[in-house]
Amino acid sequence: MRRFTVLLLLLVNSGLAVAQNAKIQRVNPTNWWVGMKNPNLQLLVYGPNAGTLTYTVTYPGVKLVKAHTVENSNYAFLDLTIAPTAKPGTLQLVGKRGGQTLTQPFELKARDKSPKGQGVTAADFIYLIMPDRFANGDPSNDKFADMADPNVDRGNPFYRHGGDLAGAGQHLDYLKDLGVTAIWFTPLLENDQPLTNEGGAMRSAYHGYGFTDHYAIDRRMGGNEAYKAYVKKAHSAGLKVVQDAVYNHVGINHWILKDLPMKSWLHQWPTYTNTSYKYQPITDPHGAESDRRVTLDGWFVPFLPDLNQSNPFVANFLIQHALWSVENFGVDAWRVDTYMYNDQPFMNRCNQALLDEYPAIHIFGESWVNNVVDQAYYTRNKIDFPFKSNQPGGLDFVLYASMLEALKQKFSWDDGVNRFYQALAQDAVYQDPNKLVTFLDNHDTDRYLSVIGDDFEKYKIGLTWLLTTRGIPSMYYGTEILMKNVKDPSDAEVRRDFPGGFSGDKENKFETAGRSNRENEAYQFVRKLATYRRDNPVLHTGKLMQFLPQEGIYVYFRYNGSKTVMVATNTSGKEISLDTGRFAERTSGFSSARNILTDQTIADLKAIKLSAKTALVLELIK
Amino acid sequence: MRRFTVLLLLLVNSGLAVAQNAKIQRVNPTNWWVGMKNPNLQLLVYGPNAGTLTYTVTYPGVKLVKAHTVENSNYAFLDLTIAPTAKPGTLQLVGKRGGQTLTQPFELKARDKSPKGQGVTAADFIYLIMPDRFANGDPSNDKFADMADPNVDRGNPFYRHGGDLAGAGQHLDYLKDLGVTAIWFTPLLENDQPLTNEGGAMRSAYHGYGFTDHYAIDRRMGGNEAYKAYVKKAHSAGLKVVQDAVYNHVGINHWILKDLPMKSWLHQWPTYTNTSYKYQPITDPHGAESDRRVTLDGWFVPFLPDLNQSNPFVANFLIQHALWSVENFGVDAWRVDTYMYNDQPFMNRCNQALLDEYPAIHIFGESWVNNVVDQAYYTRNKIDFPFKSNQPGGLDFVLYASMLEALKQKFSWDDGVNRFYQALAQDAVYQDPNKLVTFLDNHDTDRYLSVIGDDFEKYKIGLTWLLTTRGIPSMYYGTEILMKNVKDPSDAEVRRDFPGGFSGDKENKFETAGRSNRENEAYQFVRKLATYRRDNPVLHTGKLMQFLPQEGIYVYFRYNGSKTVMVATNTSGKEISLDTGRFAERTSGFSSARNILTDQTIADLKAIKLSAKTALVLELIK
Repeated sequence: MRRFTVLLLLLVNSGLAVAQNAKIQRVNPTNWWVGMKNPNLQLLVYGPNAGTLTYTVTYPGVKLVKAHTVENSNYAFLDLTIAPTAKPGTLQLVGKRGGQTLTQPFELKARDKSPKGQGVTAADFIYLIMPDRFANGDPSNDKFADMADPNVDRGNPFYRHGGDLAGAGQHLDYLKDLGVTAIWFTPLLENDQPLTNEGGAMRSAYHGYGFTDHYAIDRRMGGNEAYKAYVKKAHSAGLKVVQDAVYNHVGINHWILKDLPMKSWLHQWPTYTNTSYKYQPITDPHGAESDRRVTLDGWFVPFLPDLNQSNPFVANFLIQHALWSVENFGVDAWRVDTYMYNDQPFMNRCNQALLDEYPAIHIFGESWVNNVVDQAYYTRNKIDFPFKSNQPGGLDFVLYASMLEALKQKFSWDDGVNRFYQALAQDAVYQDPNKLVTFLDNHDTDRYLSVIGDDFEKYKIGLTWLLTTRGIPSMYYGTEILMKNVKDPSDAEVRRDFPGGFSGDKENKFETAGRSNRENEAYQFVRKLATYRRDNPVLHTGKLMQFLPQEGIYVYFRYNGSKTVMVATNTSGKEISLDTGRFAERTSGFSSARNILTDQTIADLKAIKLSAKTALVLELIK
Repeated sequence: MRRFTVLLLLLVNSGLAVAQNAKIQRVNPTNWWVGMKNPNLQLLVYGPNAGTLTYTVTYPGVKLVKAHTVENSNYAFLDLTIAPTAKPGTLQLVGKRGGQTLTQPFELKARDKSPKGQGVTAADFIYLIMPDRFANGDPSNDKFADMADPNVDRGNPFYRHGGDLAGAGQHLDYLKDLGVTAIWFTPLLENDQPLTNEGGAMRSAYHGYGFTDHYAIDRRMGGNEAYKAYVKKAHSAGLKVVQDAVYNHVGINHWILKDLPMKSWLHQWPTYTNTSYKYQPITDPHGAESDRRVTLDGWFVPFLPDLNQSNPFVANFLIQHALWSVENFGVDAWRVDTYMYNDQPFMNRCNQALLDEYPAIHIFGESWVNNVVDQAYYTRNKIDFPFKSNQPGGLDFVLYASMLEALKQKFSWDDGVNRFYQALAQDAVYQDPNKLVTFLDNHDTDRYLSVIGDDFEKYKIGLTWLLTTRGIPSMYYGTEILMKNVKDPSDAEVRRDFPGGFSGDKENKFETAGRSNRENEAYQFVRKLATYRRDNPVLHTGKLMQFLPQEGIYVYFRYNGSKTVMVATNTSGKEISLDTGRFAERTSGFSSARNILTDQTIADLKAIKLSAKTALVLELIK
């Protein structure tokens, strides 16, 4: 069945229907703007025989520079330039062939002044939402009979549950109260995918990573207007929005796959070839080209065909969609799925296009690696690799793994909290490690609380690290209310519904009264730290200084000209009295401290008691 | 007791005996040469009131540029320049004070043309010998009543056993037959140290890392002339010699410690401070200066005082000793002990001085780290660290650990042979990973065979990797005859006597007849691979290409314009038939192969059987 699927894709219409009249059914992007810094735009025009027409454009300031025909005569790619003097309005694409004349309107909008591309920095705290599982605000859009998967069933962990943008929009106050400053949704774009059989179970594309139309937000999420409204509402509340971008692949049901412009739109193989998921061949100076090709051009899974980004039409299509998304919806930052599987020169061009247009935007890709050298490769780094990435950020998978090891392992020469310390100690490989996005779990991992053995003391330690060390902290939805589980038997276990987000829920954990004492303690703990972080630039841009862990005690400082914060962790099983003399470089001049979690004052810095398994956050006082 | 020791060292003579006559007891270096590229020489002149004299030098081409007095009036440091025109001969240092005139001869030798500083490269195979434990060729030098430790006792694992240079010199043919091309001795310099109490047992300085006189080879090794003779004999046999240098510290009984030139000759602390042995503070951009100081300036152990290399007199003393050693003894390469604990700007100056004088010399330091970033810091690398090392090589502790993990662990996503593969895959951090010295064990580690559970099949796999992958292979004495043991209860267990090296030994494993069948199989296995490596430049300078391990199968190639060698390892427990199609990048154009271990021909490259737990080395045939 897999092979059959692939062979289908190989078919490219090459002019069989030339004798018939032409039609234009789609133009992508669906609109553009005047006044963009980059004057170039390449329109993909699709419809029966659309590639056999001769196109003209007559609009002040707009020139049709070149019309490309490709293998499939149902496509034309039109290169336009839009002068800075061009005014907003609707231009007409005129296509002629013989006696036929077609006219296709295309809107050039004025750019609005609403915030967009604001970026996220270490001043932010990102909250990751899987929207199908967070809150259902509009039951009328739960399912559509005309979609490939017309099901919704909260009883089935693999089916859609009905969550949407309207639901997420109802809980902005909750997030704001928690200290969150930015929301990252797993993808919202249309995933009009059928149920697929994975591991013997039929599964829906509720996760969102199989796009079927780049220019439509999924109707089950609320569609384009709901997303625009959400972003506007979030911005009004002072919250930013991060979009989850997928360049590597599309859904097997993407409209363009039904009639490919050219065979090379995808990476096609003689027989189905999966990626190896191995990143070593990319950076290995001894690596084999064939291993590199499998990693990069192999498919992520059989139902997510791999885009060929070295095809310039594909590259333009993806880059313009990125720009369109920021401009149209006003998103602030860009999380890139499966970053390391993409063609890296393409990624650089795409990143640069976004940065040229939105200089403050932040881009952070997912490159799930186990060492800092490979992690550095995919961000701005200080290693003289043959290829230099321009990605400003990245998800910090190395620090993620190290924090969990630090919490799980017993302290020894290289283990326990040494893992966290040692990961940070290798930050010299990055241009700016403070631009990496840090996390303790996400939608693809076991949930944090379960990883650390459901240990509430450890839970608080890890969150303290996340919210006080360098980087841009992010948290997966529900971690603040002690949601747990591992990916056994499936990842659906770590994507359960947020209690209270769905009508009929017996519990509502968005509200204090709906949470247990322990859950409220967790919520308030995150809130206290997150709001302290939010309000104190020392935790955004202050320097980090860390001291060698000794006997399970790990102490670091964040400091700038006006403030010094000391974070002291005791990972051991017994209370200790902290010898602060060793930290004189940072404590000298200070005599007392405020415990920012309890608001209590520690009168004498020389006598700090650290209970077993605990982390203190102290603001030093002169 | 430790503190008392340190306080003693703080005492510096500052002129109490000025009224008495002066004497000169020592000049270091003990001689120099004309025709060195660097015309500068700083003489350390020592004796009662030697610092109170006014010095003059009258010798054609030699100028006394400056005479330094220091805290201790028993020292003078004389800066000379030696013009290229200066002739060999003996100059007189003339020192005057009042009516006293002292004359001290100092020889400027002619440089001889014998080989020196030849370097070691990936064409070499280094054999590491702990000379006290290898062979005793001269029982008359086993002990000396006038030395601080007048003991020799083969029955005591911590005492000296009597091995010496004369003994090592008797086994050059053995090493040559084995395929060895270079010998590295643990240090031979005088260690006139007393027995020290370590862990409750009295121990001798048989290891050699506590120098007490830089200009004397230990008499128990045979003294300076025996070393000269050994090097000459080795060179005649086509073998190179690597010297083990120690810059970080000296023995507590070093003559200079009895009357320090100045307090800052050593790193002195208010109370005894050991190094933390932690390297992270050095490279950590978030590291604390106080942690760095403890790592670098803390003492390695209480009886090895830490030299202050940022003191220019100390730096000159050490650098000149390095040059003197190469010139005087004719050594070819330089292994540097505890490299990472040294002042790195000093190390760069020292390396540069050696490279300026002996451009082909190789320098490889010991930096026992657990990751490639820290390892790269101490060699020429491609990371933009604030400090750039100029060390040409280094001991590859990361590859060492990875090879052992590869042999010990079961194959899984990141484990088993993936460890070895992944370590090499990070070679992009080095300027030239082929200049790193690789190993499976040494005098400070558990012995290789014991680490891999006394498994002879694994033993052969690891040695195959060592002798066919990139880098300069080295092997610890006895590994070829299956010597084993771990460092429990002490490191003496991995430093046992080579059977046959000592009179009265019941077994003589230097000879075929003295070895068991298994030992002969091991010896011949190493010999076969080492001689193949020695004779085939493809394993010296050929490129390395490695393929992703799959199901425990790991395949790599060494290749150049004229030869291709395929190394295929099956770490799994069952025989497999190797799908060579995956390696077409390197196998295309070849049809058959010669198994270099068995000399058998494999007629069809497409049908290679790989037995369980085995590695094949195949030279491909067109």
